[in-house]
Order: sequence, then structure tokens, then C-alpha cells
Amino acid sequence: MSLKPSISKGTKDYLPDDLGKRDYLKKILRETFEIFGFLPIETPSFERSETLIGKYGEDGDRLIFKILNSGDKLKKADIESFNEEDMGRFSNSLSEKALRYDLTVPLARFVSQHRNEISFPFRRYQMQNVWRADRPQKGRFQEFLQCDVDILGNRSIIQEVEIILMCEHIFSRLNLKNISINLNHRKILEGIAILIGAKDKFLKLTSSLDKLEKIGKDGVIKELRTYRFSKKSIDSLTPFIDLKGNFKSKIDFLSSRLKEIEVANEGLDELSSIHDKITKYKLNSISVNFDITLARGLDYYTGLILEVLPTKNEFDFGSIAGGGRYDNLTDFFGLKETSGFGISFGFDRICLILEKLELFPKDLLKSSKIMFVNFDDHITEDCLQKIVKLREKDIPCEIYPTKSKLKKQLDYANQRKIPFVVMIGPDEFSKKEFIIKNMETGTQSVFKTINLIDEIMKLI
Amino acid sequence: MSLKPSISKGTKDYLPDDLGKRDYLKKILRETFEIFGFLPIETPSFERSETLIGKYGEDGDRLIFKILNSGDKLKKADIESFNEEDMGRFSNSLSEKALRYDLTVPLARFVSQHRNEISFPFRRYQMQNVWRADRPQKGRFQEFLQCDVDILGNRSIIQEVEIILMCEHIFSRLNLKNISINLNHRKILEGIAILIGAKDKFLKLTSSLDKLEKIGKDGVIKELRTYRFSKKSIDSLTPFIDLKGNFKSKIDFLSSRLKEIEVANEGLDELSSIHDKITKYKLNSISVNFDITLARGLDYYTGLILEVLPTKNEFDFGSIAGGGRYDNLTDFFGLKETSGFGISFGFDRICLILEKLELFPKDLLKSSKIMFVNFDDHITEDCLQKIVKLREKDIPCEIYPTKSKLKKQLDYANQRKIPFVVMIGPDEFSKKEFIIKNMETGTQSVFKTINLIDEIMKLI
Repeated sequence: MSLKPSISKGTKDYLPDDLGKRDYLKKILRETFEIFGFLPIETPSFERSETLIGKYGEDGDRLIFKILNSGDKLKKADIESFNEEDMGRFSNSLSEKALRYDLTVPLARFVSQHRNEISFPFRRYQMQNVWRADRPQKGRFQEFLQCDVDILGNRSIIQEVEIILMCEHIFSRLNLKNISINLNHRKILEGIAILIGAKDKFLKLTSSLDKLEKIGKDGVIKELRTYRFSKKSIDSLTPFIDLKGNFKSKIDFLSSRLKEIEVANEGLDELSSIHDKITKYKLNSISVNFDITLARGLDYYTGLILEVLPTKNEFDFGSIAGGGRYDNLTDFFGLKETSGFGISFGFDRICLILEKLELFPKDLLKSSKIMFVNFDDHITEDCLQKIVKLREKDIPCEIYPTKSKLKKQLDYANQRKIPFVVMIGPDEFSKKEFIIKNMETGTQSVFKTINLIDEIMKLI
Repeated sequence: MSLKPSISKGTKDYLPDDLGKRDYLKKILRETFEIFGFLPIETPSFERSETLIGKYGEDGDRLIFKILNSGDKLKKADIESFNEEDMGRFSNSLSEKALRYDLTVPLARFVSQHRNEISFPFRRYQMQNVWRADRPQKGRFQEFLQCDVDILGNRSIIQEVEIILMCEHIFSRLNLKNISINLNHRKILEGIAILIGAKDKFLKLTSSLDKLEKIGKDGVIKELRTYRFSKKSIDSLTPFIDLKGNFKSKIDFLSSRLKEIEVANEGLDELSSIHDKITKYKLNSISVNFDITLARGLDYYTGLILEVLPTKNEFDFGSIAGGGRYDNLTDFFGLKETSGFGISFGFDRICLILEKLELFPKDLLKSSKIMFVNFDDHITEDCLQKIVKLREKDIPCEIYPTKSKLKKQLDYANQRKIPFVVMIGPDEFSKKEFIIKNMETGTQSVFKTINLIDEIMKLI
């Protein structure tokens, strides 16, 4: 009895065509990261559970894939907790390690662990898969590639400026125009929370504000009411939700409203200074905006918060990159005062956009450039000798492995998108000639075998 | 309280230096695979358990990492089996998916599932991590990269010849000489089993023979005795264990001894024909040998078996690549008659050899080529403008983010192995000049700022 072949839901196979495109995007990201002075690191796919659990909030923790203990360790299963229906404890007793949920916590662990082997400021990029036990949705997978760039060990806002310039560089190379980079600052949000008298409900405030796009102003207000924000709080918040205008005018409005609140002023100064620096560059692909509702849900940001998305969002998803400044991420692991700034690119979403806008170059598939037709064992041996020579010249080529019918062999070349086919039948062989067939046009040309390498080099 | 940062045992962090080397090897493998007409695929890190379990023998199955069910599914835990100490059943009730153990079974699943989207013969390569719950040892990790190349859907021995030629191509490009490729054939081993009257104990015979190198002839004989091989069987096996000589003489010896046994003749014909074809090529890095004891433990091989190892094995490990012909691997998934031949390269072991023999090129680290010293906010803005221009010309560069002491900034450049440092102090800035310092020689030169891009382009 045979098994119906299928994959686990929320995962995906990549065929050669897909990988041609993904490699193109990977290459551009990797090259840009390196041009900006970032170096690669890689961390293990699974980490000790205590490294990951408790860093992503309750919702995040639930989505971490745990690895089941094996052997004798499985005997330590806490059956009592199962009987008490305490599934959290039961599950912890069955597992000691878990799959990477993002690249940020592993980075914090890495930097703390290798602090004496690396030099600060530490500029690193990392392109590795992460896993989340999310309910699978269209375009959302349980395994996906994250591409993160971070600088740790320095507070200068040059980092923020550089990362924004890097976005311009990447999207220009991808020919992707109309990309919005929305900025906000944690300290401005804190200032607003203080002003409206809701300092103790800061996280509830920001998580509601973050949903403005999705649930609208009324939705936000309704949610704040359920969180027991006072009418007065909500009324004083309204002008901030309604805030319109360009970057400068928003800064001016906030500066006047929040002028008494020191933390807000710090945030406004920094944000305005970053914006001033950025405006000195000619930006073709990105525009930089100030979005006072942006919070990005993550509690560990302490300064600038940033989100990247297509301006005309005809795609069914939000941001294609996001990041921010964090001051205390390595504290967990005993490394203090290591402020960092980073951005994470959503690889799959960028792929989807390039696909939809037809921005992938043609011919990304690295198929053989030449296929030799297989006519006869004797001739085949001779062809293989020539193939070896072509390969020494880095020309991808192959021979059809069996003497199948010509049509079948040519069909294979077609399906594989091989542009040229070399035919040496017994006739050609005796005349020391060969035929090259252009698979796109169908035209055939005859040459002397002695010139085979040269003629093929001319074609490719 | 902070957590001591550490990783799960059997896993490894890769620092930028490591990755420079690994990328070099990956690139050579990838390019060679493509020159030989292979296309990449990728499969998910985890598969449904039923896809993997039962394909690797009992020992293999035990080493598969299982992923713990979460949410409501965890409530289906089979506590009865725990109480009965049936840990296999208990563990199966807790998990529905498992991490990839190799790339071969996922390939069989992939080819069966996508049979209508791909063209046969299907030439694919795959470079992805696999995970095994092995006891961690020196140079042996629970997560490691496998690089597999397979051709499915064709029985021609051109595949075997091509894969061997591909090994020559790879090891030549790596400047790695003295590589042995040991061949054997499943059908010859079957013939021997028939001849010595041990056809029903075939797997025990081959697994013992496979240990000859490790436990010696006496060890093999002792083991066969414990498996209740008769004295007569063992006596008739001895000449095969003692077999010496070159490829041709071994074939001749076996042909005379096994001439009555049809299956053996098929194997000998095929092996000898593959060898004949190979000898027509000039081989610089590899030598091809016949090792009658080679079995590679895997039951799914049906034809040629192949193992690659350094001839002077001064390394603490065996093969650096291995593979074989398999006829029925996709049968599990309902795809019949899809014979394949493949090889798997042990990436980490090849890395270790290149490291030990100092065969990695220098300068694999892709650090910035230029670092601008940070003197003053005003000058820094000007430097950043120049950096943007350099980056547009694909020159990796960066600016030190803060006005730290010059020594600290130069130390950073040194640690990062950045070859050139640009210095524009207030003096230089007013004179419209800049200094380039060669970090290796320590020499400094002064140029006009207007020529900055050109002067730097000349250096790099």
C-alpha cells in the first residue's frame, strides 16, 4: 500500500522556477547588506527552550514549535499536569528545545555569548528560516525566510539613517518604486500616553492605535473603552488619531501639544533629526512618512519604530519590512548597555510583489544551455568527452541519458527550457559534423565538429 | 536575573569568518551542480511523520526529531501507552510532524507529488539542513548541511559515469587531490550471499562486511558467527574478504568465482562497464577503486554503491560523500518504476578537510573595503554622501557611527579586517582633501576630495 504524497499544511515545496526567483532576491539583499558593511552570521535552527520562551509575549509563545524529547527524557513527562489540564506545564515537561521563532532573540543570545569574539558596533545580517505555528493562510506559511540586518552596541542615529538609505538601495535595485517607509518613535507614544493620563495602560494604547488602518477610528475608540480608558483620555487622544499633514507639520503639532513632556521631546527631536538627514538624499524608490499610530506590537522597541510597505497597497498584506531601536534586548543574557537598531525584511511578501508587478528578470532558471541528443552508444561516448570540455569552460550542459525517440528527447529539452540542442547522428558523425538546433526559433545549423567548442561558446 | 547565553548541545553558531568559507564551498558545489545540468529544489524542514517514519530502519527512526503537537492536539496524548512504558506509541501520540532526517526521502515524496509538474529524467540538486538526534561528537552535529544530487526516472549508467565525473570536477576546483571513489554493486554482494549459502542473511552479511575497515577481518568473522553463519559459509566468504589487486583483476576473480550466478554477472557487467567508461577521462583529483566490502548500510540501494573519501585518511572520519542506485524509492508514494541514482556530499567534513589542508582562499570575508573615520557631525554628513556614491559603485563601505577616539575607530577597522580607512578631519575638510590609510602597511596618502571616488576605485 502506498502513501499519498503530501506535505504538512502551512509548508511549501520550491520548484526550480521558484528558486531561480528566490535566489535573485536573496542575491540582491545579500549584496546590498554587504555593500553597507554588514557581515553574515547563522544560528542553529533550534535553541534551548529557555532562550526563546517568554520573549514574545503570551501570543508569541503559543506559536513556538517545540521539539519533543526522545529516549529516556520522554519518561519525565509530567502526567499530573496533563490530568490537571495544565497543557503549558505538560508541554514544557515534554520538550527542552524549540525552533527559531524569529532572528532577533537568537541574535541577542549570539551577541551575548560571543561578545569577546566580535567587535562592536556589531553589524550583522542573517538570512535564515523561522517557524511559527500560525494558522496557515494564503501567502502565510509556518516556515518562512527572514532577512534581518542589525547594528548592536551603538546609539548613534546614523544607524537609523543608514538602514533607511539601505532600503532605498534595495528597492531601487529591484526596480520597485512607491515604497513608503513609515516612522514613529516609542518616546512620542509614551508622551501621548502621559498627556492623556494613560501611562499605566501604555501597551493597550499602542496595540489599539496599531489597528487604526484595520478597524478605523471608531474601532480604536471602542476598543479603548473596553480597556476602560476614561472619556477624557479618549477625547484628548482624538486629535492625535486625526493628525494629518506632512512630516514637518506633524512634528510641529506634536511639539506644541507635548512640549511639557520631556520624554516626548526627546523622541520628537530624534525623529525630526533623522528626517532632516534623510531629506538630504535623492530618493527614487522610497518616501519617508511619519505615522503616529505605528507601534508594531513589539514591546522591546525603545526609540525609532519603522515599517515599510508598498504605497499603493493592492496586495492583501501590510508591511514588507519593519524594525526599530531596542536598548535592552541583550539584558536577558547578561549583556547590558548594548543598544541596537535593526530591520527585518519579509522575503516572501517581497517575492509576491515582484511576481505580481512582473519585476523578476527573465531567464532566472539556470537550466543547461546545451543538450546533446543521444543517438548511439558509440557516439554518446564521444559526446560526453565534448561535454566535459564544455563544462570546463563553465557551460552548463548535459546529454539525454538514453537513446529514446528524437521527439521525446526534444520534448525534454523544451520542458527544461534548454535553448540549444546538439545533434550528432551517424551521418554527421561520419562526416565529422554536428547540428545545432535553436529550440526557440527551430532553426538548425551545421558545423564542423572540430569547431564545436568555439561555435557553442559563440552562441552562449 | 539573567540567563547564561548558550546553545543546545550538538548545534553550532557560525561567525562571519566561518560563513565566508562555507559560502565558498557552497558556491563551488552549486555552480558545479548547475554546470552538470542539475536544477535546485527545496522541501520544507518538517514533513508529516508518516512520510519519514519507517524509512530509515529502527536505528534511523529513533534519531528523527519529532515536533510536539500544540493546542488541542496535545490533549490527544496517549497516557495509557506512557503508563505501559510504550514510549514509541506515547511519542507518536504527541507528534504529527518531524524534522527532515535526510534529503532522499523528501525527494522521493517531492517527485511523487509533483510528477506532473516536472520532466523526467529529473535532475535535481538540493542543499538544505537535516537534523538527527545523534549523540553529539566532535565534528558531528545534530543539525548539518547536506548537498544531494540525484537523477530520477532513468536507468542508464551514463548517470553513474556523470556523477563520478562531477566528483572529479568538484575536487579539482577545490584543489583537493588524492580522493578515492570506492565502488561496489549490490548485485555482486547478492551473488556472494547466494554463493556462500547465506541469501536469507543478506543484510547481516553486508552490514558486517561494511565494518571491515573498523573491526578487521577477525572482527567480521566473529560477528558473522554471532549471526549464526555456518563455518562453510564463512570459509567460502574469506577469499572475497581477502580480495586484493587492481580493478580489472578483482572483476576477473569475481567473474570466475561467481560465473554461475546470474545476478552477480549483471552486477559485474555493469560495474566493469562503468569503470571502462571512466578510464577514458583524465582524472587529476580522484581515483576509482573497487571495494567488495562496501555496503553503506542502506537497504534501498539496488545497483552501484559509491563512497568518496580522502585517500590518505589522516582525518578522524570516513567518507565525505556517498551514494548509489535505487530502483524503488518512490514506490512508497505510489510512483512506480522510477529508478534513480544519487550522491550526497558531507558538507561539514569537506569544510574540515579544506581547513586542515589550508585550501580555502584568503580574503573570503566580505568586510567593508573602506571605513570612514567619524570626526565631526558636520563632516560626517558629507562623508555619508560620498559613501552613498561608493555604494552605488558596489564598493562595500561604512562610517564609524560615533566620534570616538581615533585609536578606538582604527582598532575597530583592524578587528573587522577593513583594508583602507578614509580620514577627513577639520583640517582636511577645509583644504578639501582626504587621507587614505592602508591598514596593513600603515602608510597614508593625501588626495583631493574631488577625486575621492576615483582614487578609491583605483585602490579596490
